[in-house]
Amino acid sequence: MSATVINYYLLMGRWEPNARGRLQQAALDLFTERGYEQTTAAEIAKRAGLTERTFFRYFADKREVLFSGGEELQQLFVDAITGAPESATPIEAAGAALAAAAAQFEERIDSVRQRQAVVTANADLRERELIKLTALAAAVADALRERGVADTTASLTAEVTIAVFRISFERWLNEAGQQTMARIGEDLLAELKVVAGT
Amino acid sequence: MSATVINYYLLMGRWEPNARGRLQQAALDLFTERGYEQTTAAEIAKRAGLTERTFFRYFADKREVLFSGGEELQQLFVDAITGAPESATPIEAAGAALAAAAAQFEERIDSVRQRQAVVTANADLRERELIKLTALAAAVADALRERGVADTTASLTAEVTIAVFRISFERWLNEAGQQTMARIGEDLLAELKVVAGT
Repeated sequence: MSATVINYYLLMGRWEPNARGRLQQAALDLFTERGYEQTTAAEIAKRAGLTERTFFRYFADKREVLFSGGEELQQLFVDAITGAPESATPIEAAGAALAAAAAQFEERIDSVRQRQAVVTANADLRERELIKLTALAAAVADALRERGVADTTASLTAEVTIAVFRISFERWLNEAGQQTMARIGEDLLAELKVVAGT
Repeated sequence: MSATVINYYLLMGRWEPNARGRLQQAALDLFTERGYEQTTAAEIAKRAGLTERTFFRYFADKREVLFSGGEELQQLFVDAITGAPESATPIEAAGAALAAAAAQFEERIDSVRQRQAVVTANADLRERELIKLTALAAAVADALRERGVADTTASLTAEVTIAVFRISFERWLNEAGQQTMARIGEDLLAELKVVAGT
């Protein structure tokens, strides 16, 4: 551990191993048991065996526990698109991003499913999710433009990518692991050719 | 005018010719001049030369003035898809809906542009717009399923249709009428074939 990192922990107070992950799991469990509205940050901290002060070191509020993963997801998409071979078409680059995202979801299907049930049950959270997906589409479009993709093509590819992402995510959760999310995404990209009318 | 309609007007109070349209235009003008937040229903009614009571006969609140057109738009999409020839592919049926919507927007570009500036300037209104577009996608998917289109194909086509709708709408407004919205939509549907990778 570097001196800088050690100083950081001294500054921030006692270091709790995997505090973020413990808070996230405690929040999901409480949201599921009692409902999102009925759960406070203090209760989440207590369930995780941490203080409320620790909670607020990691999250601005209880909603943020559900949405803080959005930035990592966006980075995952952007990195995959940026890192795709030069020869990849826009939809191939986007397909690489979908595969990377699918692999991450696959690893933690239980908490993904738990989170989704919480979000679906609350209108404000559903709205927040929509806004995050719109931001994700904009980030995908920007990453494609960075690759030299023309403006309108980048926007259209990004919107289509998010559509495939949403539909494959939903089908994957509904089908209870009959197929991997990556496979469902691939099938949808093939289906897209049929839909486009060729 | 039928007796029933006359009774309706007697019941509801003095009939004001085109009250809905006058309220909508007054609202857009005030939202543009003073900002959405700073405008009240009473002020909108006054600007339209109508009473506040008349305002609330047409709209639940000032936000509704901006979004009441969403239901008509949804109906327009659904009707066009339902009315498309049996031989039309899903994307062709959706394309007919896009053309019908584009024609309606084209007729009233000034108020469409004015409304869009108001919505874009306010985070709550932008969220509301997103929710309406999601509902529109769901309605398009349902209309396609009614035509016998398979579940996933219907969802994918609907999402793609709304993506084309959004992008053509934005480009049409930004380009200040250089091309019709219908034409931009057609070009995007052609572009979709390239994006899909065929």
